[in-house]
Amino acid sequence: MTKYVYDFSEGNKDMKDLLGGKGANLAEMTIMGLPVPHGFTLTTQACLGYLGRGDWPEGLIDEAEEHLVRLEHTMGKTLGDPTDPLLVSIRSGAKFSMPGMMDTVLNLGLNEDSLKGLALQTGDDIRFANDTYRRFIQMFGKIVMNVPAEAFEHALDAAKAREGPNAQDTDLDADDLRRLIDEFLSIYEQHTGSPFPTDPRAQMRLATEAVFRSWNGKRAVDYRRQNKIADDLGTAVNVVAMVFGNRGDDSGTGVAFTRDPATGERVPYGDYLPNAQGEDVVAGIRNTLPLAELQRIDPVSYGELLQVMHTLEMHYRDMCDIEFTIEKGKLWILQTRIGKRTAFGEWVMAFDMLEEGLIADDEALLRVDANRLEELFKRVISSSATARAIARGLNASPGAATGKAVFSADEAEAWAHRGERVILVRRETTPDDYHGMIASQGILTSAGGTNSHAAVVARGEGIPAVCGADAIKIDLAGKSFSANGTRVREGDVITIDGFSGKVYVGRLPLEESVLEKARSGDETAREEMIWKAFERIMRRADEVRRLRVRANADTPEQAANARERGAEGIGLCRTEHMFLGEERVEAVRQMIFADTPAEEQEAYDKLLPLQREDFVGIFRAMSGLPVTVRLLDPPLHEFLPNQVELAVEVAVAEARGKSGGLDEKRALLRKVNELHETNPMLGLRGVRLGIVKPGLYAMQVQAIIDAACRVKAEGGDPQVEIMIPLVATKEELRQMREELEPVARRELDHERQWLDHLEWGTMIELPRAAVTAGEIAEVADFFSFGTNDLTQTAFGFSRDDIGKFVAMYEERKLVPANPFVTVDRPGVGRLMRIATEEGRAANPNLHLGICGEHGGDPASVVFCHEVGLDYVSCSPFRVETARLAAGQAAVGSLESASK
Amino acid sequence: MTKYVYDFSEGNKDMKDLLGGKGANLAEMTIMGLPVPHGFTLTTQACLGYLGRGDWPEGLIDEAEEHLVRLEHTMGKTLGDPTDPLLVSIRSGAKFSMPGMMDTVLNLGLNEDSLKGLALQTGDDIRFANDTYRRFIQMFGKIVMNVPAEAFEHALDAAKAREGPNAQDTDLDADDLRRLIDEFLSIYEQHTGSPFPTDPRAQMRLATEAVFRSWNGKRAVDYRRQNKIADDLGTAVNVVAMVFGNRGDDSGTGVAFTRDPATGERVPYGDYLPNAQGEDVVAGIRNTLPLAELQRIDPVSYGELLQVMHTLEMHYRDMCDIEFTIEKGKLWILQTRIGKRTAFGEWVMAFDMLEEGLIADDEALLRVDANRLEELFKRVISSSATARAIARGLNASPGAATGKAVFSADEAEAWAHRGERVILVRRETTPDDYHGMIASQGILTSAGGTNSHAAVVARGEGIPAVCGADAIKIDLAGKSFSANGTRVREGDVITIDGFSGKVYVGRLPLEESVLEKARSGDETAREEMIWKAFERIMRRADEVRRLRVRANADTPEQAANARERGAEGIGLCRTEHMFLGEERVEAVRQMIFADTPAEEQEAYDKLLPLQREDFVGIFRAMSGLPVTVRLLDPPLHEFLPNQVELAVEVAVAEARGKSGGLDEKRALLRKVNELHETNPMLGLRGVRLGIVKPGLYAMQVQAIIDAACRVKAEGGDPQVEIMIPLVATKEELRQMREELEPVARRELDHERQWLDHLEWGTMIELPRAAVTAGEIAEVADFFSFGTNDLTQTAFGFSRDDIGKFVAMYEERKLVPANPFVTVDRPGVGRLMRIATEEGRAANPNLHLGICGEHGGDPASVVFCHEVGLDYVSCSPFRVETARLAAGQAAVGSLESASK
Repeated sequence: MTKYVYDFSEGNKDMKDLLGGKGANLAEMTIMGLPVPHGFTLTTQACLGYLGRGDWPEGLIDEAEEHLVRLEHTMGKTLGDPTDPLLVSIRSGAKFSMPGMMDTVLNLGLNEDSLKGLALQTGDDIRFANDTYRRFIQMFGKIVMNVPAEAFEHALDAAKAREGPNAQDTDLDADDLRRLIDEFLSIYEQHTGSPFPTDPRAQMRLATEAVFRSWNGKRAVDYRRQNKIADDLGTAVNVVAMVFGNRGDDSGTGVAFTRDPATGERVPYGDYLPNAQGEDVVAGIRNTLPLAELQRIDPVSYGELLQVMHTLEMHYRDMCDIEFTIEKGKLWILQTRIGKRTAFGEWVMAFDMLEEGLIADDEALLRVDANRLEELFKRVISSSATARAIARGLNASPGAATGKAVFSADEAEAWAHRGERVILVRRETTPDDYHGMIASQGILTSAGGTNSHAAVVARGEGIPAVCGADAIKIDLAGKSFSANGTRVREGDVITIDGFSGKVYVGRLPLEESVLEKARSGDETAREEMIWKAFERIMRRADEVRRLRVRANADTPEQAANARERGAEGIGLCRTEHMFLGEERVEAVRQMIFADTPAEEQEAYDKLLPLQREDFVGIFRAMSGLPVTVRLLDPPLHEFLPNQVELAVEVAVAEARGKSGGLDEKRALLRKVNELHETNPMLGLRGVRLGIVKPGLYAMQVQAIIDAACRVKAEGGDPQVEIMIPLVATKEELRQMREELEPVARRELDHERQWLDHLEWGTMIELPRAAVTAGEIAEVADFFSFGTNDLTQTAFGFSRDDIGKFVAMYEERKLVPANPFVTVDRPGVGRLMRIATEEGRAANPNLHLGICGEHGGDPASVVFCHEVGLDYVSCSPFRVETARLAAGQAAVGSLESASK
Repeated sequence: MTKYVYDFSEGNKDMKDLLGGKGANLAEMTIMGLPVPHGFTLTTQACLGYLGRGDWPEGLIDEAEEHLVRLEHTMGKTLGDPTDPLLVSIRSGAKFSMPGMMDTVLNLGLNEDSLKGLALQTGDDIRFANDTYRRFIQMFGKIVMNVPAEAFEHALDAAKAREGPNAQDTDLDADDLRRLIDEFLSIYEQHTGSPFPTDPRAQMRLATEAVFRSWNGKRAVDYRRQNKIADDLGTAVNVVAMVFGNRGDDSGTGVAFTRDPATGERVPYGDYLPNAQGEDVVAGIRNTLPLAELQRIDPVSYGELLQVMHTLEMHYRDMCDIEFTIEKGKLWILQTRIGKRTAFGEWVMAFDMLEEGLIADDEALLRVDANRLEELFKRVISSSATARAIARGLNASPGAATGKAVFSADEAEAWAHRGERVILVRRETTPDDYHGMIASQGILTSAGGTNSHAAVVARGEGIPAVCGADAIKIDLAGKSFSANGTRVREGDVITIDGFSGKVYVGRLPLEESVLEKARSGDETAREEMIWKAFERIMRRADEVRRLRVRANADTPEQAANARERGAEGIGLCRTEHMFLGEERVEAVRQMIFADTPAEEQEAYDKLLPLQREDFVGIFRAMSGLPVTVRLLDPPLHEFLPNQVELAVEVAVAEARGKSGGLDEKRALLRKVNELHETNPMLGLRGVRLGIVKPGLYAMQVQAIIDAACRVKAEGGDPQVEIMIPLVATKEELRQMREELEPVARRELDHERQWLDHLEWGTMIELPRAAVTAGEIAEVADFFSFGTNDLTQTAFGFSRDDIGKFVAMYEERKLVPANPFVTVDRPGVGRLMRIATEEGRAANPNLHLGICGEHGGDPASVVFCHEVGLDYVSCSPFRVETARLAAGQAAVGSLESASK
């Protein structure tokens, strides 16, 4: 028979699946001999069993009763006993900590009989007993039975009001509280239709069922979807003998961290609230004291607590977050877990613990979160700033930003265009705001969560953002907003902090990111510490990773930046920009408009020397490292004016009878119409262009090889990889190579040079290419997965157009995750796996990489490692992230590191 | 060691791979004891060996010499002998008959010495000998050495001219011919730079090498690409002892078919040319006589030939095509093969042979070509018509058509719009002509082959077409064309015959297709025969096929038509048209423009009763058979005006200061702009619409279920399958079903009905859906492969846009075949296989079909059979084709049937 209930002495910290995080850690601490109250845990299996059949699974009631009797025996007290009653708390605890689930009911076991017993046991402290009973009814009613919280609070407020205008709840005496108890009991009956349960076992059954059911509550389900936690884990229920922090000034309750979770410093950190129970801290009724105050109040307990903290940190080998209660000078530990920390904190702690010998190199590597590494590169509000926030929202995208408030995307773009720094303030954003968002220093919204459109775009673009700051009331017509009494008008300067979610009026001083400052030698002690941590842990990542990391870079500047950040080559050098710019537009139009091959060739002859210079700069910057150049990819109409605008311009000129330049415009419009495509994404682009306009790719190859020869002649070491985009069939690549390789050879002969490294390959960015990769590999030296387009074609999602439904898709979990951020393993990932395996089987020398934006996403980097790619290529500012993620992938599961 | 040479007595008809078609059949006839001249065959392996090393493979020369000596021994004559020389013909023969390859060199072995011997052996017939020598030099020069044919022909014409104005070559005497020989020899030397080879063995070597090399000639290669014949087969070379049809009036040569290849009738058919060699028949220098004339000229040989024909037909169990020569009253058979025949002929022959007991049911089934079945349904020119063609082109798309000539697509559309029947006449067509092509009765081009744009579109649309009629000279400016002296102006009526490629002036009488006439009871004996054949063979196909055949039909009329043609259900009922039409456009706009859910619901309430009526008609027509209804698929902007046109209209109105209705147009333009998509193919459509506009699909489901209940109440048997399009993830389908199934249940309860057959499924038309089909199948009752979209997304080809490069892609073989016509097996086919296997594994009750246009393509039907689908669905006019192909797939390889 399934064992559904475990005494704390029967479990350990590795049993989180069964006992939940809280239960497993309570068990662990029990075994360690720490002062944990006695208790037992109903397992997650019990929860799933209950949810599955809608009733307690067979045997569970008996088993729970057995443990309860044992607990009574251990404690020498009995539930409901009128002389010496046992009281317990009921605490939920899933494997992962989860807001939205029912949390805790304290003081369970009280009724009119045991109330007397409690008073008796506390030296006839009737006030304490009544206060405890009042709290229990309130908490049970609210949490277990969904009685509206206000009902109880109004009654409490009324009771206090009877005492005087500024009365606290501590001003209520035993009689006041007795009256309140009676009021609460009738509130309870009124809202639930039943009298308050007097049988402690019935109380426990109801509370336990409520915990079980809360697993499927809407907020819990939403949270799991958001955080990709499986729905079939269930929650455990802990039944813990009560200890009381509300028994006077020698009692209290608090939270402690073994190190500072914000800075990572090795100092104890926390809060303490004397004469209180845990829910008082949460409710924020009274202000807590800094933990250090406890040393003054109760030095013995404080010393004992420090000892416990040390023991726990050594045992868990990580920073721990501890809940404790002191009952009449006796310390009790009620919970511990690995503490959450800031991105800065995690680097400092990982490095310190490594130095302290607490953890090994690889563990330190796994202790930092690659997803948050970018935060270290973001600007922060100077620590010297003293302003008070006018509002606080969600920290939706890290970094601090300051600028003038504007209220529409068009204004943002217009103001930015004339050199102003702006913060775009909106209720929420839509895809139509995109142009204004990317023109802004920061984004502030009054609605929407951390996965709202504004948040997603901001993070994607690296723009600081605060979202859902609901204190902000926007007056769109008046171009202003107010927040807690402060009014901000268009053009007024504000500052937002994407780390804390805070919003300030005025221009607060910003500082470069700690890492940038450290790198430029301009560091304080703290920054030096983060820099050391960064260097050491990144070195480890570089030592262990199997994946190489390249960057997507199109210019010498980007290439140099990427190299400085540790890029080991360019995985994608796009050549589109080489067809743009004033001096080139004429030649490009000539190329598009050419009626004869000779005219077309003339255009290429003009472009050739310009593009050669472009490549020379890139090969110089990347000397000694491979550069993958992608031949022209986008459809030609991207180099011509917008169809609708031009058609309107021509028609209006005609209507007005203006003929100046009209013929030329008409000719242009004819060409634009001719080149217009219904679905340009699936049209005449990529290798198809190369086939239809053979001179085009030949010119590019000539420019590439010329440039490489030049750099080589200077003493450089160009390593050239020529990439043909959008290949669907082997024949496309074979025929293009057949055409282009002689061009390259001719140039090499002409320059009397040879290149050590000249390879030809293709992007795998179409599903057909993926499933026929075995054939294609026969004529390719390398593959580079173009996961942007592969995701577009596999899902049939146009990135340009999904704005209208993607938010709903993410929210309703219609896609496993945003497939443009993280590689969709079952679909796109499977295509990649097929292509990798069959490509390698057909051509063992094939080398493989990825150059879609996924190359900079940690989860996708792990996938690339698993699939066995040779490298990832990402935008320059993601190079460190990719290096770190690649190292973590090599060492072990990234998942354990991100918890 | 490889055996490279086979005597005719060593082979048989099943050795076509090695001996080629001609050699294998010569060997077969030799074994059968038919009067075949002696000879031997150099194998296809010899050819490949030669092409591989650029020289004769080791041992081949010796082996050929050995066989040659044996032939000389058998014949008692020696090559080049001055008294009794052996002459031979060299005949190429690949596995498949292939135009463009070198064909035949006759009379090989002649030089000045053997010329004398030939004269001696023929009773001093010097004229015959000289004529034979002159023919040899001419043929050898032209075919083996590429001397321009005109050079010889001019000399021959000059010689004839010297004899008089109307002289025939038979008017040249021995001396004339001797002079001509000398002229030919010098023409040869002049063009080749070498004297004519006098060594017969050198002649033979050169001729053999020329045959080998012609395998890789451009025309042969093109032909193979076009006809999907492998490049690595090679051709065999046959060396055959000469017999002479040019030895006087008791000699001659001819071609005979064992049955009439045009009508299929069981009567001998063919041509005979007295006193001639084979090339005279081919060259058409003199008019041939009908074969029956031979009975009068040489009754003995005729009788013998009939006997041979009977023997061959019984032996090959099929209609044979025979080349024969009579030399001085002695019949020789030079070649036989299975004869080509018309689409009509093949049905009649298959049926007759089945009735005669010559072949079994399944063989008869495989004898007809599913690709050509449509021809039986096409209109033909009445047999009573007597007009003379003014030009002849390629029979690019079957059927006859008559109409007024127009010279541009716009005119075609405009004329058709006002009720005129037109034939579109173009040099060639481009994608921009599409709208005019589909408005035309027929298409006539002066350039382009059977795979030109015009031909492909015409066949796809079922429009008769004659292409590449190069006698037609178009004067675009003058809106006319001339052909062989006849001028046709715009509006003049012409008639084209897509069966024969002929073009006529005037309106020729057309007749319904033989099958349509037979079906309507209005048949002649011939039509009755085809009808019988059709019924019997189709019955067999229906008996044996495992694949069910459904039709894609959107209206009751289409449904009824499909059912009459044997469709077993509707595999795709599109619902787009239910949102079109004047009475609906208002409601549809309201649906799109709605600001509130209430407004939107109002629109649905208007559409509901109209769409219910649409479905009632369809369910009535298909009572008892399944109907798969696809919920709305296209993006909403398809129901609004064109963006460019509307923007121009608004801008022009503004420029002109016209304000009437402008506000409304502006509002419309705003909405059009808002809904505009960069890549609508990959945008907000299919299930995404259903998710974003939940009321839309709910309304459709309500209309479907209401209609089904109505039909059921009438006593009908509606079988409903509701299909959600464009699903990429399991969640999309799961959530849509979760939303829509309650709607269906509610309607059923409301109508107090239940349905025997109500299923929910999806199209598999995205690569991600295919590779995650195992997941999707968990929530689907059926899959239908939407291979149009699957091909678009797998290849990244937009069907709307590939016009600019697809012709080049087909020509350069960059795609295996047009993937929109025949399922691309390695890519799209593999995705289908994955989805089928994994879908069935996850849900054994899943049923699967295909509803892309591939469902009516015979090769794709075979693939669907192999993959194990349950049904194919195609346009109504392809239902018989699909039934036939499905039957053939079940019985065996379709390939053998289509040769």
